[in-house]
Amino acid sequence: MSVSLQVVVPFAAERPKTRLGGVLSAAERRAFADAMLTDVLAAVTAAGHEPTVLTTAPLDRDVPQIVDERPLGAAVDAVLADAEPDHDRPLAVVMADLALATPTAIRRLTTVGGETSETGAAADLVFAPGLGGGTNAVVVREPQFRTAYHGASIADHRRVAAELGARVREVDSRRLATDIDTPDDLAELLLHGDGAAHDWLVDAGFELDTDDGRVGVTRESATHR
Amino acid sequence: MSVSLQVVVPFAAERPKTRLGGVLSAAERRAFADAMLTDVLAAVTAAGHEPTVLTTAPLDRDVPQIVDERPLGAAVDAVLADAEPDHDRPLAVVMADLALATPTAIRRLTTVGGETSETGAAADLVFAPGLGGGTNAVVVREPQFRTAYHGASIADHRRVAAELGARVREVDSRRLATDIDTPDDLAELLLHGDGAAHDWLVDAGFELDTDDGRVGVTRESATHR
Repeated sequence: MSVSLQVVVPFAAERPKTRLGGVLSAAERRAFADAMLTDVLAAVTAAGHEPTVLTTAPLDRDVPQIVDERPLGAAVDAVLADAEPDHDRPLAVVMADLALATPTAIRRLTTVGGETSETGAAADLVFAPGLGGGTNAVVVREPQFRTAYHGASIADHRRVAAELGARVREVDSRRLATDIDTPDDLAELLLHGDGAAHDWLVDAGFELDTDDGRVGVTRESATHR
Repeated sequence: MSVSLQVVVPFAAERPKTRLGGVLSAAERRAFADAMLTDVLAAVTAAGHEPTVLTTAPLDRDVPQIVDERPLGAAVDAVLADAEPDHDRPLAVVMADLALATPTAIRRLTTVGGETSETGAAADLVFAPGLGGGTNAVVVREPQFRTAYHGASIADHRRVAAELGARVREVDSRRLATDIDTPDDLAELLLHGDGAAHDWLVDAGFELDTDDGRVGVTRESATHR
């Protein structure tokens, strides 16, 4: 298969990453979220796709943008309703805080469901589960699919898929599972990242802290776990 | 390559899973750890390997066992010193609490490093990083490698590998990254498991709880996050 794949990256431009409020100021959270977006767009591009950012406000960035100030689910569902993705024109949604995403991980996402299964058909839906029950990325080849981004969304998305009779595959990726939301997640980025967000954190003074046997982060004199 | 691979599964038989002490009694923790071991051994076996359990005390279980009551690192290092693993006789170490491991995930672990790289050589060491900086599985083809299981062990293992001049690959697997240690991890098992440990949890009365938007678990009337 050599179909063109549209990749949409939803981005909260104005008040991102509120759960990092204990360790980063509002301005820092915006800068950090912007660095993560840079990493995600770079991984998608290096995997051979041209990403579109679905943003709550226009970005000063040279990338195709769709501006929609509604909440994530409503904005993504509007894109799905407009695009009507199917097997000839699949659409992927990749979260903007997957700062550990690599081109290889993105390629796994976009190719795993395209493999010919025993029935000779590709998956209608591919999910990349997030830690804590989220759905960090999807590939949609089923025009009727709509999102359910709340609570344990992966369980809801599996239910939606079953109701549609859709063939589902899941991608087993730690890198796609790790959305960077909390201070603990920053340790993952320090351990495994090598892009703009990793460098931003290091420049901001964050370091790994393993003093008590569990891995956390420290920033200058303060400790955050 | 079609070399035979020895797979060792370290198991703390007597006081397992102390960090689940807030939600499970000592007897329950032993039963739960035993169910997770069952799942890991099943995945390894289904992936085509015969596992050996490296246990702190003899188990009433029909599986090859090495009994060594020393701490994890010393016991694994003794196995490595004895086996002298190399490219003809690789040795894998897979933690006993990877209750989300599937045969596919184990096959990715044991084959990824065997791929011929650009230099024509397989990896000397393959790591499966755990969440929080651990090293949840390794494949060793370098006889001088010794473990460093403490703190952010993945960083230490990378350092050890660099000092040995070893070629390293890492497996990007959420399933191998998720060791089941804490109450939060139980939610991952409820969401994504389908083996003995998952069933044990359900039988013990655990359910997903998404009431406040974050995913946790409840057990009968108590809530644990």
